[in-house]
Amino acid sequence: MNKKYIMTPGPTAISEDVLLEHARPLMHHRTPEFSEIFSAVTKKLKKLMKTENDLFILTSSGTGGMEAAITNAFSKGDKVLVANLGKFSDRFAKISKVFGLEVISLDYEWGNPINPEDIKEMLDKNPDIKGVMFQFCETSTGITNNAEAFGNIVKNYNAISIVDAISGIGASDLQADNWNLDIVIGGSQKALSAPTGAAFISVSDKAWKLIEKSNIPRFYFNLLDAREAASRKPPQTPWTPGISIIVAMNKALDMLFEEGLENAFRRHAILAKTTQKAVEKIGLELFVKDEDARSSSVTAVMVPEGVDGKKITSMMRTKYGVQIAGGQGKLKGKIFRIGHLGWFGIFDTIIAISALEMTLKDLGYGFDFGEGVAEAQKVFYENSYLE
Amino acid sequence: MNKKYIMTPGPTAISEDVLLEHARPLMHHRTPEFSEIFSAVTKKLKKLMKTENDLFILTSSGTGGMEAAITNAFSKGDKVLVANLGKFSDRFAKISKVFGLEVISLDYEWGNPINPEDIKEMLDKNPDIKGVMFQFCETSTGITNNAEAFGNIVKNYNAISIVDAISGIGASDLQADNWNLDIVIGGSQKALSAPTGAAFISVSDKAWKLIEKSNIPRFYFNLLDAREAASRKPPQTPWTPGISIIVAMNKALDMLFEEGLENAFRRHAILAKTTQKAVEKIGLELFVKDEDARSSSVTAVMVPEGVDGKKITSMMRTKYGVQIAGGQGKLKGKIFRIGHLGWFGIFDTIIAISALEMTLKDLGYGFDFGEGVAEAQKVFYENSYLE
Repeated sequence: MNKKYIMTPGPTAISEDVLLEHARPLMHHRTPEFSEIFSAVTKKLKKLMKTENDLFILTSSGTGGMEAAITNAFSKGDKVLVANLGKFSDRFAKISKVFGLEVISLDYEWGNPINPEDIKEMLDKNPDIKGVMFQFCETSTGITNNAEAFGNIVKNYNAISIVDAISGIGASDLQADNWNLDIVIGGSQKALSAPTGAAFISVSDKAWKLIEKSNIPRFYFNLLDAREAASRKPPQTPWTPGISIIVAMNKALDMLFEEGLENAFRRHAILAKTTQKAVEKIGLELFVKDEDARSSSVTAVMVPEGVDGKKITSMMRTKYGVQIAGGQGKLKGKIFRIGHLGWFGIFDTIIAISALEMTLKDLGYGFDFGEGVAEAQKVFYENSYLE
Repeated sequence: MNKKYIMTPGPTAISEDVLLEHARPLMHHRTPEFSEIFSAVTKKLKKLMKTENDLFILTSSGTGGMEAAITNAFSKGDKVLVANLGKFSDRFAKISKVFGLEVISLDYEWGNPINPEDIKEMLDKNPDIKGVMFQFCETSTGITNNAEAFGNIVKNYNAISIVDAISGIGASDLQADNWNLDIVIGGSQKALSAPTGAAFISVSDKAWKLIEKSNIPRFYFNLLDAREAASRKPPQTPWTPGISIIVAMNKALDMLFEEGLENAFRRHAILAKTTQKAVEKIGLELFVKDEDARSSSVTAVMVPEGVDGKKITSMMRTKYGVQIAGGQGKLKGKIFRIGHLGWFGIFDTIIAISALEMTLKDLGYGFDFGEGVAEAQKVFYENSYLE
């Protein structure tokens, strides 16, 4: 008997209630039954993003949503700025290059947040920049960027902001309209804790103007087709959607709104803090030094000297059944990442820290058993999100 | 109480067994547990396609698979031939044009199959054609094309064959290797009766040669990335896959192989014949006149004179709970289509015919009650696929 616990920064564990909805008998996508759910999910996702902009659900992983943003918003040769500080911002740069854009990559040492002033400076220097792309939460490093500052800078220029909020939205407050974020991308499988396979994307009026004159070839991800299909009565998708995923998202969103968005953000912040303090207590170092830049979705931890980083994640999974994530790209073996987002509560954190302690003991790292767990309990008790 | 029956040419009803698999707790996609299922599904899909070629699962609808075929296999300005005889072959032409290909559209009156000799003639006349695209089953008209003849013609030219087998595969025999089909596209939601949201695509050596030199920009659907990820140990996908869909497909494929592929093809053929004879018995005319070209997946029926075609499908759904499909594009209101594929047996056909009879009676079409149902029973009894 080895119970399994998923504690990665996505995909995240799915609640029984959402799984049961996921398993509902097929509704054909051209029926009033499904149309009602489809419209409701679209509306709820807009509420989650705090936006009145158009929003579309795509049947793809989050990367498909990123490609949709880039291929729709720009034209060949357009200059774009990518705030590059991790694996996923680098993906923005890669996709942009593939589709013929001129990419200015504003590179930061991984683990550091972007300084919004740098964005402003680049935009002043390059008034022909058409778009600025960044991650709300950069999953590979556990950084949260100041999307509010970014959006409010970019709005003053002849450029749009594109935000990959896939691992951030639902865990941290994002206000697409108040912060002037033109295109925001989310995914089903992160803080929503719904099954993998759906992305969603919001589009502002400023972005539509670019989309309408874009000359990059696109078909499956063409947002003009998505807009046309959504304008039908009842609203539709241009292609067959991931029906069971959308049905599951409907339930997941209901659960999130039942908790209350602000409560959910607070819960995630407390779980993040609890995790951070607990790993520090057992002598480990957090990867992100700037406390304000630490994400509520995922905590990146430095592998302690003398310990094989790859063994931490593999032993936690095989011996204790607890799946966390290792480092990606150049951080492989140097950090590990504990996800604490979605359908995740304090006792999940206790499990994560407890499994980490036992694994580190297995690997010969010296400290007193239970210190991390005790710290997690103490920090949580003082900041509890429970009533 | 109004029990619902889905009898469209896809998405198709999902069995309880597959739904329960679909609702299994999330397996992270980077775990041995999922890798095993992922490899097994890939292997089973190759068995279904009767191919040793590479095969990839994409997280998208079937249209994404069509885009993947076109954007990977060709380069800008390439000449391609589309055998155009319905809504979905027309989609091949549209996608090709969007991505800058020169399209020769070999147009047929909808409802007629393609004559393979015409393909040969076009290839002889245009030796620079790089690819020939056609539907195995054209869902919009209920036509099955002779994929064997096509493949064996195209193999002799400097061109590849691309087959949309989305609504055909699993219902009718398709032998990718024996018939020299270079790229074959399938979907999760048709004869497999698994949830919507996954496509799969096979690629021959001849096709890889084109793919390796293609210059059409692509990212999410880049098959070179899919091949690289699949070559890792254990095999992976470049982006997060539709995990719960693949898990459900695994069960659906097991059920299909338990029945036996040849038995499943025979079952579909008998259900098609039963449906055809029953609707003819009540005086309706089949849309496809050429008996050999009628698909095993879906039967297209002419709306009888004096009856409002749109009312047939809407009344069947709202009054009787039976969802069939109307005509698409220029066939709207002129035909209706009864799907009989996937998790579908003789008593589903009896329900379809019975609901159709009652609906036609409601709409004032004159005939004797039960004639169609009796004919369905008779034809089935003489050709039963049951032991």
